[in-house]
Amino acid sequence: MSSEGYSITPWEARGKIDYDKLVEEFGVEKISDDLLEQIRRLAGDLHPLIRRKFFFAHRDLNLVLDDYANERGFFLYTGRAPSKAPMHLAHIVPFIMTKWLQEKFGVNTYIEIPDEEKFLAKKVDSLEEVEPYVRQDILNIAALGFNEDKTFIFRDSEFIGRMYKPAVLVARYINFSTARAVFGFDGETSIGLIFYPALQIVPTLFEKKRPLIPCGIDQDPYFRLQRDIAPRLNRFKASELLAKLAWGLTGPESKMSASEPETAIMLNDPPDTVRRKVMNAYTGGRATVEEQRRLGGVPEVCTVFHWYTLLFEEDDKKLEERYWACKTGKLLCGECKAELVKRINNFLALHNKRVADAEKRITKYMYDGKLASEMWKWEFRP
Amino acid sequence: MSSEGYSITPWEARGKIDYDKLVEEFGVEKISDDLLEQIRRLAGDLHPLIRRKFFFAHRDLNLVLDDYANERGFFLYTGRAPSKAPMHLAHIVPFIMTKWLQEKFGVNTYIEIPDEEKFLAKKVDSLEEVEPYVRQDILNIAALGFNEDKTFIFRDSEFIGRMYKPAVLVARYINFSTARAVFGFDGETSIGLIFYPALQIVPTLFEKKRPLIPCGIDQDPYFRLQRDIAPRLNRFKASELLAKLAWGLTGPESKMSASEPETAIMLNDPPDTVRRKVMNAYTGGRATVEEQRRLGGVPEVCTVFHWYTLLFEEDDKKLEERYWACKTGKLLCGECKAELVKRINNFLALHNKRVADAEKRITKYMYDGKLASEMWKWEFRP
Repeated sequence: MSSEGYSITPWEARGKIDYDKLVEEFGVEKISDDLLEQIRRLAGDLHPLIRRKFFFAHRDLNLVLDDYANERGFFLYTGRAPSKAPMHLAHIVPFIMTKWLQEKFGVNTYIEIPDEEKFLAKKVDSLEEVEPYVRQDILNIAALGFNEDKTFIFRDSEFIGRMYKPAVLVARYINFSTARAVFGFDGETSIGLIFYPALQIVPTLFEKKRPLIPCGIDQDPYFRLQRDIAPRLNRFKASELLAKLAWGLTGPESKMSASEPETAIMLNDPPDTVRRKVMNAYTGGRATVEEQRRLGGVPEVCTVFHWYTLLFEEDDKKLEERYWACKTGKLLCGECKAELVKRINNFLALHNKRVADAEKRITKYMYDGKLASEMWKWEFRP
Repeated sequence: MSSEGYSITPWEARGKIDYDKLVEEFGVEKISDDLLEQIRRLAGDLHPLIRRKFFFAHRDLNLVLDDYANERGFFLYTGRAPSKAPMHLAHIVPFIMTKWLQEKFGVNTYIEIPDEEKFLAKKVDSLEEVEPYVRQDILNIAALGFNEDKTFIFRDSEFIGRMYKPAVLVARYINFSTARAVFGFDGETSIGLIFYPALQIVPTLFEKKRPLIPCGIDQDPYFRLQRDIAPRLNRFKASELLAKLAWGLTGPESKMSASEPETAIMLNDPPDTVRRKVMNAYTGGRATVEEQRRLGGVPEVCTVFHWYTLLFEEDDKKLEERYWACKTGKLLCGECKAELVKRINNFLALHNKRVADAEKRITKYMYDGKLASEMWKWEFRP
């Protein structure tokens, strides 16, 4: 998808994104306050990521809530394509959202690890290059504490035996001209990447319930396609809970990117690296301390404030205090950054302890937990 | 592939094919008499299908014979895409050739059953439609008597778990522009069919020996592609033994086609159907008996004589006698056809008895024979 001034595809987002325009162009809906209230009522709570509308748009989320309220149930599906670098903070945001939804609604959760995608997209030169990160990514996801009996994490290369037949059914309904229009494929695209959308759609067919997919809005094209196909296969149209793109540390128009280390906090960054990256981060601060005391900062464009908002200040009141302390020149960038460094390092220390614990559990998610065992016997029946 | 006056792709051949032109255009070589002699020397014999140059062209067949003579070995690979009709006589021609080669050279033989291809190519409307013919096709192939411990027959939908990873490696090297040029894909082509060539190439990578593929020349585009890719995956370029297209019964420019029943003898046609089809076949006969006695027939354009040549007269001397008896007006079409009916019906009776016997054996080929058992544990390693 591209339009004047910005472009957004599952592979790259550039420039300043006009989310209102995107909502209109993609034909999705913004999450209304009413819908938020419904979620709060059913879940008993609202996660900051949705309360603060980082997850800001949706498709059919109202129908998902209806299905839940009327005991028809739903299921969760998301994924992560391993690359040649570890995951960073922005990568786990949708998984944190998904984990929260699983916890609150008690539903099955499917996590696809398309271990071939980056290779087919020519982002890496070999499958071997990706391999070490496949396990690491799965551990990072598992560390978030998904339910062992209700979560299935699967690698495309391993689970393809069960996925290929439904992928063939899906693929039959996607002509090249559609795929080209939706994903921007061209003559240089490998025939493997052209087929890949079928494999990303298959997990939406795993159950005869409505699938809810928490993901970045850049992933919407896959599921827009799915919505044309699913009814023909006697399955539900995908519903989506769509996030904005998290900012990189180099500015509100940047994106965390493993290939530009200064933009991203990697989940395995040591504390001093986190410190260096955050201390160098782009903020809404002024040129001098004097100026900042006088004029105040601009938290609206500050990547440090952005990350407080996403993951590092759960308390709305405290977040607001921080906002005004900045705005009024009371809180300077150095102090604010130092606090974020502390919080990120605490988070990563705990996360990495959980990663070590997850070692024991990943076979549950992948092979022998309740849902995983069932899925290894799964066959698609329309 | 298309050129003036004729077109040839793996999906359709139309018009009168100029094989000399095709040989030049595809960049393959005609089988020389020298090469035939080499085969005879190594095999102790020459099958009529190659002796009479129905298999008329090749790639690297000389290297295959070298490899065999120098005990480096080779392997055979061919296949059959099940459709919504039974196999006909033309379909088993490459398998008869392959079986003969296996017998003479004692090599492993891989037979792919791409049970998804016709569906992805939109030749059938559902996978269910194809399903009954998958088993029937495998039985028809098994009935030819392949070696139980050296033959692996596999369905894509079942064996995909082992094939997908190497298919991804292959697919990475095939860009859409190449696939479009080679196969004539367009905007209407399903993304599944666009990926499919990777799956047809994978079996050429099963062993670190030279693969020899007996097939119709229409299949060459797949293996031309393979030849660019195999060296990068530390495998041999495919060698090919290429057949002309067998004629349908309605003329030398027709093709046996299940969807035009009068063109084809189906392997399960009852004797009276065979009689009717052959008696209606296009021949090189004259308008009247008198004329034929006087001018003689034209076996060169006769579909009846064509099928004697391919499968129903092994003795060269007798074939030549039949040729001259026709040419000189001594043998009339009625008699010649009646004899072919007899031979085809004998062939089919024996074949179908063997099909019944093959029921017991197909699990050997597919799952638990020596080669099959090994293949179910196979992993591609470059």
